[in-house]
Amino acid sequence: MINQANTMNSALPSAALDQLFRAARSYNGWSDRPVAEDVVQELYDLLKWGPTSANVCPARFVWVRSPEGKARLAELAMGTNRSKILAAPLTVIIGNDLDFAERLPALMPYGAETFQKYFAQPAVAEVTAMRNGSLQGAYLILAARALGLDCGPMSGFDNAGVDKVFFADTRIQSNFICSLGYGKPDSLFPRLPRLTFEEAGRFV
Amino acid sequence: MINQANTMNSALPSAALDQLFRAARSYNGWSDRPVAEDVVQELYDLLKWGPTSANVCPARFVWVRSPEGKARLAELAMGTNRSKILAAPLTVIIGNDLDFAERLPALMPYGAETFQKYFAQPAVAEVTAMRNGSLQGAYLILAARALGLDCGPMSGFDNAGVDKVFFADTRIQSNFICSLGYGKPDSLFPRLPRLTFEEAGRFV
Repeated sequence: MINQANTMNSALPSAALDQLFRAARSYNGWSDRPVAEDVVQELYDLLKWGPTSANVCPARFVWVRSPEGKARLAELAMGTNRSKILAAPLTVIIGNDLDFAERLPALMPYGAETFQKYFAQPAVAEVTAMRNGSLQGAYLILAARALGLDCGPMSGFDNAGVDKVFFADTRIQSNFICSLGYGKPDSLFPRLPRLTFEEAGRFV
Repeated sequence: MINQANTMNSALPSAALDQLFRAARSYNGWSDRPVAEDVVQELYDLLKWGPTSANVCPARFVWVRSPEGKARLAELAMGTNRSKILAAPLTVIIGNDLDFAERLPALMPYGAETFQKYFAQPAVAEVTAMRNGSLQGAYLILAARALGLDCGPMSGFDNAGVDKVFFADTRIQSNFICSLGYGKPDSLFPRLPRLTFEEAGRFV
């Protein structure tokens, strides 16, 4: 599946860059419009292609859309995150599977044994799961925006409680959660500043 | 800077979704075409808008493009990553600044003190830096692709050695590195499979 045309990509149109980055915002309130199940499938079928170390793909996703599921998740969230979860049509829990190496025979067919030995070191598995699971969480946010969805990512919740309820009997650890839907513009806070290029880095 | 039109976004055209996700690949070899400095600035000016917890923006970037810089970085890389770094026009080191909270008076003007107290707990600062620094690394990959660049992200290098050379006298810790440029299609490996929707998650 080599795409010979890939080296001749040009920049996406300015409106697409706005939609993905410059005009995109984190929403706190949501319209009643639901997120169709095929949109969630399409979202996964985009984000899954984002790169991870040795193709480990450690992120696991619980797409919470039932009233019961939203109520259980909201109970475990902090402060105003509770009402945001209840109001959103869907909130996805992004977890890191510490047992990700079990999948390597399928995901990395030619080097699975070598990598499994490497990832048998708990500290290596943990940092690899966190780094790459977070990358996949960001792919989810940008894939959602690319599909015309709005996002409301949140870290303020009881991680251990969420793991107990949604990832019982696994070694999956919740990383962050993200509401998905069609945001209400009047729920936006004023936009916060960012670091300048020079504050955030340098050429060497 | 509220964008009222944001809730009416539609999906980007299929070719854009291909460029960002479905046809995008991790390159191992690079054409001689350089990455212009204004493209790097534009890349940062896109990725900086991606969301982070409490707008902490912990990622720091060293854009390595000089022959001396590439040689020093390549020495600290594992195996074939050395020649990839030397061949690429530019390789960026993405680091997590554990002192990110010092920037909060500017980045989060109305809640800086509360958040600074929270992030004074070392374990909280560490996980926040790693989660959000990795998110920002993924924003970099997708912003690069959105600008028509190709990426070659890598984790195989001596993190402590890179920190000593490129982040001396700071609490910035290298996370991963990513070559940027215009990839050679003949440097691609065959594409590896991904988990299915059902293998990676479920509806609740």
